[in-house]
Amino acid sequence: MFILKNAGRMGLELYLDLLSQPCRAVYIFAKKNNIPFEFKHVELFKDSILGMKMPGGNNPGHSHEGQHCRGEFGKMNILKKVPALKDGVLTLAESTAILLYLSWKYNTPDHWYPSDTQKRAQVDEYLSWHHTNIRGNAGKALWIKVLIPLFTGQTLPPEKLQEVMDELAISLKQFEEKFLQDKPFIVGSEISLADLMAIVELMQPIGVGCDIFEDRPKLSEWRNQVEEAVGKELFQEAHELILNIKELSNIQIDPQLKEHLAPVLRKMMK
Amino acid sequence: MFILKNAGRMGLELYLDLLSQPCRAVYIFAKKNNIPFEFKHVELFKDSILGMKMPGGNNPGHSHEGQHCRGEFGKMNILKKVPALKDGVLTLAESTAILLYLSWKYNTPDHWYPSDTQKRAQVDEYLSWHHTNIRGNAGKALWIKVLIPLFTGQTLPPEKLQEVMDELAISLKQFEEKFLQDKPFIVGSEISLADLMAIVELMQPIGVGCDIFEDRPKLSEWRNQVEEAVGKELFQEAHELILNIKELSNIQIDPQLKEHLAPVLRKMMK
Repeated sequence: MFILKNAGRMGLELYLDLLSQPCRAVYIFAKKNNIPFEFKHVELFKDSILGMKMPGGNNPGHSHEGQHCRGEFGKMNILKKVPALKDGVLTLAESTAILLYLSWKYNTPDHWYPSDTQKRAQVDEYLSWHHTNIRGNAGKALWIKVLIPLFTGQTLPPEKLQEVMDELAISLKQFEEKFLQDKPFIVGSEISLADLMAIVELMQPIGVGCDIFEDRPKLSEWRNQVEEAVGKELFQEAHELILNIKELSNIQIDPQLKEHLAPVLRKMMK
Repeated sequence: MFILKNAGRMGLELYLDLLSQPCRAVYIFAKKNNIPFEFKHVELFKDSILGMKMPGGNNPGHSHEGQHCRGEFGKMNILKKVPALKDGVLTLAESTAILLYLSWKYNTPDHWYPSDTQKRAQVDEYLSWHHTNIRGNAGKALWIKVLIPLFTGQTLPPEKLQEVMDELAISLKQFEEKFLQDKPFIVGSEISLADLMAIVELMQPIGVGCDIFEDRPKLSEWRNQVEEAVGKELFQEAHELILNIKELSNIQIDPQLKEHLAPVLRKMMK
C-alpha cells in the first residue's frame, strides 16, 4: 500500500472568514458536530469581497496568517465567495449547500435536517425565505455604520440606517409570527439548520450597536435557546470577531481596493 | 369504514399563478411527474403581490375563476406568496421547499434531486446561488417594461432596462462558466430541480422582447435540452401566459391596489 506524502492535504478544507455570517454558521456546525476540517482563513477585506474578484494589491503591513491561501482560494472557487468547501475533487460554495453536504456526509444528528418530511419541509421553507429577508436586511447595519464609511470615506445619514432597521423589523415580525410562532425553535423542540442560519445573521447588527433583541422578548428567548443548543463557548468564539467589529474602523484598507469598491458600495446602498 | 364527505378536499392543493416564475417550476414538476393536485388559481395582481397583504378592494369587471380562493389563500398562507402548497395540515410557501417536499413525498425519479451526495450538493449550491443572482435579475425586465408602467403610470428610461440587462449578463456568464460548464445540464447528463428553477426565470424576459438566449449558443442549447427533458408541450403550456404578457398592459388595475403599490414599486426600482 502506498501512502501519498501529501495525503493530509486531501481532507476536508473550509475557507472561512468569521466576519461573514454564513461562515460562522458553517464553522459552528462543523465544530459542534466534531467534523474534522482544515480551517483556511480567507480575509474578506483583502482576498475577495461580495463575490467579486479583487485587484491583486495588498498591504504587507497588515498581513495575517490566513493570507497564504489567497491564490489557492481563487483557483478553486470561481464564485470567489466564502464560505467555500473543498473535499477531494469536490469544491462547493453557498453555505446552505455546504451545511447540507456536511450533514449528509457526516451523518449528523437528525434534528439539524430532519428526516421527517414535514419538518424537513419547514427547514427548507425557512432556508429559502431567509435569502431575501433576514439575510438581505440584517447585514446592512454593518455596511452602513462601518464598512461603507471605511471604503468610501463617506458617512451615511442616520435616516439610511433607520430605513434599513425598519425593513429588518418587517422581516423580524414575519420571522416571529410565521416561523417561530410559539415554538422554542423553528421546527419545534430542537435546533435545526434553519435556526443556525438565522442566528448568525441576527448577531451581525449587534457589533455596531443595533441590538435587535432588545424589546423583542420572544426573539431573545429563542436566541438563548440557540446559544444553549450550540454551546455558549463555541457561540461566543465564533462571534468574537463580529462583536468587536468597531476595531475594524482603524484598519488600513489597500487604496486600490478602496477605489475599486467605492462606486459599487455607493450603488448598493442607494 | 367511514368515508368523509369532504375527503376529496384533503388532497394536495397548489396555489399558483403561472405568470410567476417559481409557480411555473412547481406546475411543470407536478405535471411532469403525474402528481395529482388541485390547481388553485391565485391572481397575483388581485389577490396578493410581492408577498404583501393587499387591500380588500377588487374589480368585479375583471373577475376570473381563480378568485374564489382569495380568502382561503390568505388564511392558509401567512407570507401571502405564491407558489403555496397545502397538503392536509401542512402548508408550505417557497418554491424550493415545495419542490423538495413533492420530490420526497412522491418519490420522483432520482435525477431531479440526486441521492448521490456530490450531485445533490451541486443542486443545492445552484438553488442557493439562484436567489440573489438569476432570480434577482431575470424578472426585472418584466417589471421595468410592463408592470411598473401599469401600476405607476410612469415609463422608466431605457437606461434603467440596460442597467438591469447588464447585471443579468454578469449572472448569466457565471451561470454558464460555473454551473453549466460543458455539461448538458447543471449536474451532468440529466435534468434536476436546479435546471427547472433556472429556466423558468430565464423565460421571463422573453415575453417583453428581451430574448437573452439570442447570441448565447451554450445557453440556447441548454434551454433546448431542458425543454426536451420536460416535454415541449408541457413547457409551452406553462409559459403561454408569460409569452403573451404584453396583453397585460391592457388590463384595468384596481385603483386602490395601484395607489398602494406605486410607492413600493418606485422604491424597488431606484
